[in-house]
Amino acid sequence: MTAATYIGSRTFSTTPTAQTPPAAGEVQIAVSYTGLCGTDLHIFHGDMDARVGVPAIIGHEMSGVIASLGEGVTGWAVGQAVTVMPTLSCGSCAACTRGHGHICHKLDFIGIDSDGSMQSSWNVPADVVVALPEGLALDEAALIEPTAVAVHDVRRARLVAGEFVVVIGGGPVGQLIASVALRRGARVVLVELDPARRALAKESGINAIDPREQNLLDLVMQETDGAGADVAFEVSGAAAGVNSAVDVLTTRGRLVMVAIHPKPKEIDLHRFFWRELEMFGARLYQREDFEEAVKLVAIGAIPARRLISRVVGLHDVEQGFLALESGGAMKVLVDCRPVAGAMS
Amino acid sequence: MTAATYIGSRTFSTTPTAQTPPAAGEVQIAVSYTGLCGTDLHIFHGDMDARVGVPAIIGHEMSGVIASLGEGVTGWAVGQAVTVMPTLSCGSCAACTRGHGHICHKLDFIGIDSDGSMQSSWNVPADVVVALPEGLALDEAALIEPTAVAVHDVRRARLVAGEFVVVIGGGPVGQLIASVALRRGARVVLVELDPARRALAKESGINAIDPREQNLLDLVMQETDGAGADVAFEVSGAAAGVNSAVDVLTTRGRLVMVAIHPKPKEIDLHRFFWRELEMFGARLYQREDFEEAVKLVAIGAIPARRLISRVVGLHDVEQGFLALESGGAMKVLVDCRPVAGAMS
Repeated sequence: MTAATYIGSRTFSTTPTAQTPPAAGEVQIAVSYTGLCGTDLHIFHGDMDARVGVPAIIGHEMSGVIASLGEGVTGWAVGQAVTVMPTLSCGSCAACTRGHGHICHKLDFIGIDSDGSMQSSWNVPADVVVALPEGLALDEAALIEPTAVAVHDVRRARLVAGEFVVVIGGGPVGQLIASVALRRGARVVLVELDPARRALAKESGINAIDPREQNLLDLVMQETDGAGADVAFEVSGAAAGVNSAVDVLTTRGRLVMVAIHPKPKEIDLHRFFWRELEMFGARLYQREDFEEAVKLVAIGAIPARRLISRVVGLHDVEQGFLALESGGAMKVLVDCRPVAGAMS
Repeated sequence: MTAATYIGSRTFSTTPTAQTPPAAGEVQIAVSYTGLCGTDLHIFHGDMDARVGVPAIIGHEMSGVIASLGEGVTGWAVGQAVTVMPTLSCGSCAACTRGHGHICHKLDFIGIDSDGSMQSSWNVPADVVVALPEGLALDEAALIEPTAVAVHDVRRARLVAGEFVVVIGGGPVGQLIASVALRRGARVVLVELDPARRALAKESGINAIDPREQNLLDLVMQETDGAGADVAFEVSGAAAGVNSAVDVLTTRGRLVMVAIHPKPKEIDLHRFFWRELEMFGARLYQREDFEEAVKLVAIGAIPARRLISRVVGLHDVEQGFLALESGGAMKVLVDCRPVAGAMS
């Protein structure tokens, strides 16, 4: 089988390696597609070497087909189309014992903390395997994991139909949040500087604006009879994004902090006090979010195919990262299937 | 009757004025006590002249006895002991129409936006009058309004019995929050730099620590088996207080923003994301909070009398503010009753 192995900053190596049979309790998946996300890009840049270890096989947004079952695995069949919810909790830390195992203090995030799916054949614990509905295209299914992030973010917001939502940042997660919120019956405006991303959002029925051309606050006030937005999702990671998210909210409005802000940012705490605003951190997803994401992608409520900018082979993973890095791509998939005629 | 009238920075004037009978729908209260709060101190400093207007009669933490009833007022009797919930909402703004009238966008905060209780005789709309239970001392009853703030803050935190709570800042509101949280069955630590305030808190059964002598995070971790605090109340208004409040929280911990932070402050948004923390702005109170506060003060669950550092007369309001300003007093009350033998 073939794996694309991260061997240090900006470099992957693909050499055929021996195929290990699945251990007891494991499922072996013939991986179809692996999506690249922002965290993968950080790894590519060499910023997370201490966490991932070098060499490492990364990748956690995936789809595939069950190739074989380890001893004692039941309820699964060879040939079944699946994806993986790539988190393993310890079960005993302060987060796990309080019902928040999805953000376990000792979380094994598969594809970062342990070997991921950027390989043609992947053995994972049966517990993390999630069935795909029949007929769901496997390239689209690789979008389920980021969709689960969006579903979780929207659930953290306690969004209800008819509410007005501002999404700050139109990358893949921002666009997925917008699509999930629309599906929930919300009115949505997406704020994004990049014209190509705005155009893509518009194709998905998302009202996307350039805040340099259109005053966001004016727009929100006009659309809400002067009340302000019920929910803002901060997905930009920028200081200006945080400010906008706070400014647009109505009384008791909810801000969901989705983006990673490595350094502390200034925030208008007086407005939190004065308008009784609320802020919710949101990270990853829980099982129910993941299952909901499977459904949303399967019924076409998420513009999964439209978000796929490019598909590269296992030998061209670096090209995929360069496309992401340039800002010219939304979602890049790695086709992990063995090339016809090549040794599997 | 006599009123202490604010006539500009650091200056009050008391001149006997004509007594106006209560208008239709109003109740005339013979004011017993008026407490001074932090906002009143801002007014005393001349920082809120534009809002209050000059001259102005301020004061909104009070107790008194009904002296007469305006036309059409029913359900009240002369001689009845009462307090006032000093907020009037417009009923039609975005906050009011969404059920958040307590922070109405056009709120008339009686005692700031309209005449307050620092006078021996006060006419108010019957709607804002709240009955006091029999036997409740009128000096203690003047603490009901700040207690309602604390009840609201605790309610915003969705606090449940057994949770671990950190209160940052041991002024009157911080101590009241600590007392309300204890009453709810929480375990509480109060963080306060001033030794006199810590000593007072300890007399009320509150575990109060000096963060320069005892490491707060170590203490919280020790008390919670390494989990962290469930709830933090930021009541200090200091940047260090905000940081501490964020640092001590457990996964999904709730931060209630009680203090006024006039300028934006840096906050660790990454920790909000990573631990899925939550922040809730809290301002004033709703009717149910106020009624709960009446009960808590009446049954002695709140150390109301202990918090009263000093009582001054209507002619000595400036002395009361100087005591507050020096940091040497917790709650200062103004005795608004006519001096025996003086013209009422």
